[in-house]
Amino acid sequence: MVHIHARDAQGNNSSDVAIYQDIIRRIRAACGILIQTTNGIGVRRDPKTGEFLWPSDEDRLALLTIVPKPDLYGIAAGTIDFYHPEGGYEVETPYVNTQHFLKSTLPHVFKIGSTVEFELVEVSVVHRLARLADQGVFDRNASNLWMLHGGGLGNTPPTARALVYSVDEQQRLFPNAKWGVLGAGKAQFTMVGMGVAMGCDTVRVGFEDNIYLPNGSAAKRNHELVRAARVIIEGLGCEVATPDDLRQTFQLRPAA
Amino acid sequence: MVHIHARDAQGNNSSDVAIYQDIIRRIRAACGILIQTTNGIGVRRDPKTGEFLWPSDEDRLALLTIVPKPDLYGIAAGTIDFYHPEGGYEVETPYVNTQHFLKSTLPHVFKIGSTVEFELVEVSVVHRLARLADQGVFDRNASNLWMLHGGGLGNTPPTARALVYSVDEQQRLFPNAKWGVLGAGKAQFTMVGMGVAMGCDTVRVGFEDNIYLPNGSAAKRNHELVRAARVIIEGLGCEVATPDDLRQTFQLRPAA
Amino acid sequence: MVHIHARDAQGNNSSDVAIYQDIIRRIRAACGILIQTTNGIGVRRDPKTGEFLWPSDEDRLALLTIVPKPDLYGIAAGTIDFYHPEGGYEVETPYVNTQHFLKSTLPHVFKIGSTVEFELVEVSVVHRLARLADQGVFDRNASNLWMLHGGGLGNTPPTARALVYSVDEQQRLFPNAKWGVLGAGKAQFTMVGMGVAMGCDTVRVGFEDNIYLPNGSAAKRNHELVRAARVIIEGLGCEVATPDDLRQTFQLRPAA
Amino acid sequence: MVHIHARDAQGNNSSDVAIYQDIIRRIRAACGILIQTTNGIGVRRDPKTGEFLWPSDEDRLALLTIVPKPDLYGIAAGTIDFYHPEGGYEVETPYVNTQHFLKSTLPHVFKIGSTVEFELVEVSVVHRLARLADQGVFDRNASNLWMLHGGGLGNTPPTARALVYSVDEQQRLFPNAKWGVLGAGKAQFTMVGMGVAMGCDTVRVGFEDNIYLPNGSAAKRNHELVRAARVIIEGLGCEVATPDDLRQTFQLRPAA
Repeated sequence: MVHIHARDAQGNNSSDVAIYQDIIRRIRAACGILIQTTNGIGVRRDPKTGEFLWPSDEDRLALLTIVPKPDLYGIAAGTIDFYHPEGGYEVETPYVNTQHFLKSTLPHVFKIGSTVEFELVEVSVVHRLARLADQGVFDRNASNLWMLHGGGLGNTPPTARALVYSVDEQQRLFPNAKWGVLGAGKAQFTMVGMGVAMGCDTVRVGFEDNIYLPNGSAAKRNHELVRAARVIIEGLGCEVATPDDLRQTFQLRPAA
Repeated sequence: MVHIHARDAQGNNSSDVAIYQDIIRRIRAACGILIQTTNGIGVRRDPKTGEFLWPSDEDRLALLTIVPKPDLYGIAAGTIDFYHPEGGYEVETPYVNTQHFLKSTLPHVFKIGSTVEFELVEVSVVHRLARLADQGVFDRNASNLWMLHGGGLGNTPPTARALVYSVDEQQRLFPNAKWGVLGAGKAQFTMVGMGVAMGCDTVRVGFEDNIYLPNGSAAKRNHELVRAARVIIEGLGCEVATPDDLRQTFQLRPAA
Repeated sequence: MVHIHARDAQGNNSSDVAIYQDIIRRIRAACGILIQTTNGIGVRRDPKTGEFLWPSDEDRLALLTIVPKPDLYGIAAGTIDFYHPEGGYEVETPYVNTQHFLKSTLPHVFKIGSTVEFELVEVSVVHRLARLADQGVFDRNASNLWMLHGGGLGNTPPTARALVYSVDEQQRLFPNAKWGVLGAGKAQFTMVGMGVAMGCDTVRVGFEDNIYLPNGSAAKRNHELVRAARVIIEGLGCEVATPDDLRQTFQLRPAA
Repeated sequence: MVHIHARDAQGNNSSDVAIYQDIIRRIRAACGILIQTTNGIGVRRDPKTGEFLWPSDEDRLALLTIVPKPDLYGIAAGTIDFYHPEGGYEVETPYVNTQHFLKSTLPHVFKIGSTVEFELVEVSVVHRLARLADQGVFDRNASNLWMLHGGGLGNTPPTARALVYSVDEQQRLFPNAKWGVLGAGKAQFTMVGMGVAMGCDTVRVGFEDNIYLPNGSAAKRNHELVRAARVIIEGLGCEVATPDDLRQTFQLRPAA
């Protein structure tokens, strides 16, 4: 599966639906890999002040209308102090993800026969989602829920202690959900190791979160990071899923 | 110790320094109890739309200039999804507490010989504060740091599991800090019980967080909640501190 | 409920069934309190060497034949290094509780319409019991299982961290079980406070584990400790159960 | 490092010092690998009854006198219900490791300039060792202490939750100790993965605990399991230590 953020011709984060559509068409023409978009978009900097400019909810929700549709979606699911120096957020900044934003995204995604990766960069997001589920926004017991436990984005450190606590809370509250891990910066692969050893369903690696290979050298291409994850996954006796495996796991409608 | 939020003549949350000054003078005239103010202020509602109106950083920072000075301060220390139906926040809403706000408050408070209660309504705030301490904003090893672990405000539930995790992380990162507990709504007294049994230094009870006595009936006056806390504290073999005890514990300058 | 260990005329721990029968008859004649016996018995000392003499499995299993039957039973459920200076075990000593002993006790107790309190003085005992349940020795999902989490007997300290971990493991593996707490020595009442605040079903206090009241003075009679527990229980907004409540909770057959 | 249990000509576990001496001489003649013996020995079966026969403390302590001396030692440090079907203990059985045994082993090992791996098959053993350290049996703050956290021997399951809890308790009580992991049966490599991702100092793999490679096939030789561990270690960006590294880490006297 490939997780996509679009950039414009100048290399800046972009919310331009046309760019996303072009990316999806080109990938689909080349291979059958599953495609995930998010409505995180990411910030741009004000060219004058250098300050972060966050996209509006409107811009973010527009990404739900991309056609051809991606196979899966992702959503930043909590309001936090965001800090991710490896990803270009070397200054901590509030990252607001409102109930309105979640309530507009979630039912839509499930209705069109897809699923959404909940980015849980703090354990508090697990508890927030439980409240949303109690309000009927989505089904707490669905087996195609997908929870991504992070370490090193936001405030939560990439420790086994934090991961175990987060996964335990999630499994108590969403007992049938699939779950994955991500780690920012040099913790990317230790988080993969912990997650796989704990039986996670997905891992996320790549340049969005980190550029370093396990041995400390910088990767030149994203696929080097993917290969390094594969060594860990297979070293621990697991297998990498195929796109068809994942379609089944997440109960996805066939790509249109 | 008394924790104060001011209200104006209409009963709305107020940031008016004059009201705070009047309150402090009247309390000091009456007795020697320690006085704590915060710069949380609280929201008002837009009279037209009914939406929450949050105070600006400027309004909040102005509360540091109150004279006569309160004995201690308090600060909401993390950016979260705030939800506290017992306290009038029955709709979840983003609660932003910026680095700028913290960096303006903390050094000031320590410099004038007081201390500040860090409201940790999520464990992620502990980790955020560790980063601030690493940046030199305050001394991680100071013995007059004061950490308030909450349950039921924001997303974190008032469970022993969440409290133990939060206190463990805090004690690892701020080994000499004093710590306390608060619980929102009916969990107010179970949080007191857990905290005292775990050896906490302070407990917070009162109408800001809850109106119910342990037996489920509504208290009419704040002091009923304080008395109910006292029963638990003494039932567990502890004693209630005097103002002088607390001055020593928190290394406070004598009241001016 | 009263938890009974018998002593002979010389004041030594005794496995004499006749003494137990006499005790039960006298209590039943006096009041309707529920009666619990265990087959722990406790050690005696060799009058010559001063070394501990542990009762044999045979002696211990004989206590299942007491008539009139007690209402409930108790069993030391794991093999551990026992250390309980407040209880007269000031030298650590191996405490062996074999599978044979458990397999002889458990089905018998459930068959006669009673239940048994599993003494979990280490979290490892929770995991051992899960294995026994997997082998069919008792029903893991029964709602009249009764788990007693201890602190300060054996190696496990009376901390919130240890208690939360033990209760979490127990609730994951025995989701419908009732549970209680005990603490040895001065931790007796802090364990009661934690347990009640966490929603436990039973607490155990008394001279077997501790002689000190919460304020640090020595109790002269067992009922002083019971009253001190009652202050905590009611201070936290709970009520003390009646014998009839407990008969229902534990699905006990009426006393013969 | 190689961890040795001796067998006699019939293939049974043996406490014969001469066999150990022969093994050590042959290994030293062949290469510079570090050699660890334990005084666990292991059980034999009574040829008539089939029951386990445990070695006496005397037999076990005799293994401290092996000459040439091994480089490091190991000790089963707690009394537990032992259960290890992969290791031939398919029936649970009490495994007693007395204070006398520990107090006779530990000071001796540290005095001769070696160190000892404490086998912590339950977290309760961490707490027991803290009590022994408080009694002066060994130095709690020494930096050459060596703690082995196990999953799947005894009652403790090979979960991340159990491992994190055990390591946290150990690091709180023995802050400078080195630590490692082992897993029984098919959990051998998931425990390695968790341990390495958490920053452990040593991992233990081999036929004593498990015969399966990560992919589920049975290994024919011990070194296949070692190689599989190496893939995980290097996949997570760590390096395998040399004997000289380990001598320094554990502050070992040069081999005599």
